[in-house]
Amino acid sequence: MEALKHKILEAGRVLPGNVLKVDSFINQQIDVELMTAIGQEFADRFADQQIDRILTIESSGIAPAIMAAQALKVPLVFARKRKSLTLSADIYATKLFSYTTQQYTDVMVDKRFIQPGEKVLVIDDFLANGQAVEGLIDILNQAQATLAGVGIVIEKSFQPGRQAIEAKGFRVESLVKIASLDDNQVQFSE
Amino acid sequence: MEALKHKILEAGRVLPGNVLKVDSFINQQIDVELMTAIGQEFADRFADQQIDRILTIESSGIAPAIMAAQALKVPLVFARKRKSLTLSADIYATKLFSYTTQQYTDVMVDKRFIQPGEKVLVIDDFLANGQAVEGLIDILNQAQATLAGVGIVIEKSFQPGRQAIEAKGFRVESLVKIASLDDNQVQFSE
Repeated sequence: MEALKHKILEAGRVLPGNVLKVDSFINQQIDVELMTAIGQEFADRFADQQIDRILTIESSGIAPAIMAAQALKVPLVFARKRKSLTLSADIYATKLFSYTTQQYTDVMVDKRFIQPGEKVLVIDDFLANGQAVEGLIDILNQAQATLAGVGIVIEKSFQPGRQAIEAKGFRVESLVKIASLDDNQVQFSE
Repeated sequence: MEALKHKILEAGRVLPGNVLKVDSFINQQIDVELMTAIGQEFADRFADQQIDRILTIESSGIAPAIMAAQALKVPLVFARKRKSLTLSADIYATKLFSYTTQQYTDVMVDKRFIQPGEKVLVIDDFLANGQAVEGLIDILNQAQATLAGVGIVIEKSFQPGRQAIEAKGFRVESLVKIASLDDNQVQFSE
């Protein structure tokens, strides 16, 4: 997606430890026009699938996922990262390991919001080690729903997330693939 | 907003302790068509203001805020609830007390994302005691930005949030006002 590549080169910042900060347009400040185009691009790439709903995880996944849901005219569900005191006990839950915080987080979705047999598109902002996506796939398995595919805004192709998901037989569509962040430079794949 | 009232009566659930659960269409599963209309309604109500940006707080504020930002064609910023290890040290920060969890949470926005003199619309899903909105107003004050007004999806008018914000001289636009949740019944104001 060329508009996204341009924005990453213009406004992304590479920090030590292979960190690409896109908080000025993706995950704290949001460029809503770009995010709307991102949602449309996901809808176009998965136009061959009969998507019933989109699943993402709070917080950074919500913006791209809601725009994809708007373009596909389907409901969105987002997994929550800790148990809210007012959340129903009737939940699908899994654990995610975050390399950023070096901690496990409980993640959950109310069972009412994923039906068995539904075809679900998983959307997230980043794919690196694939922990978040694998957690969402685990929740879909518990719900006996089908994964239609995984839509990622920015893939770090030098980390093992895509391989792990493809090894399970699932399709990954990343709008931008980053081959390397070495020497503080963004190198795209392809 | 009639469509929202209907949805609350149809799909909202009243739990003990004056809790109104709208997690099947607002804050876990999202009815994206309704949320798009909510965003347009905020844009219409604040059409008399020159809004520069929208400010909300993760996670439940993001969906209505991004739809309002889409309708108003302005950027969105969301405050984060705890310090991410990769977040810059250059932040505006405040503390919120949550009556739901009975805990204080640190909330922060990167200083790059609110400019002095900007006219900012604050959006959130619920207004009850007003803690979240007051925290966001504190951040705007630190940034020397101007609050254009506060847009709320669902106001619990029997709790003191609106009064507290109006007492500071600010305008509050709530799409739905709830007068009472007594006897597990939703009673709207007006």
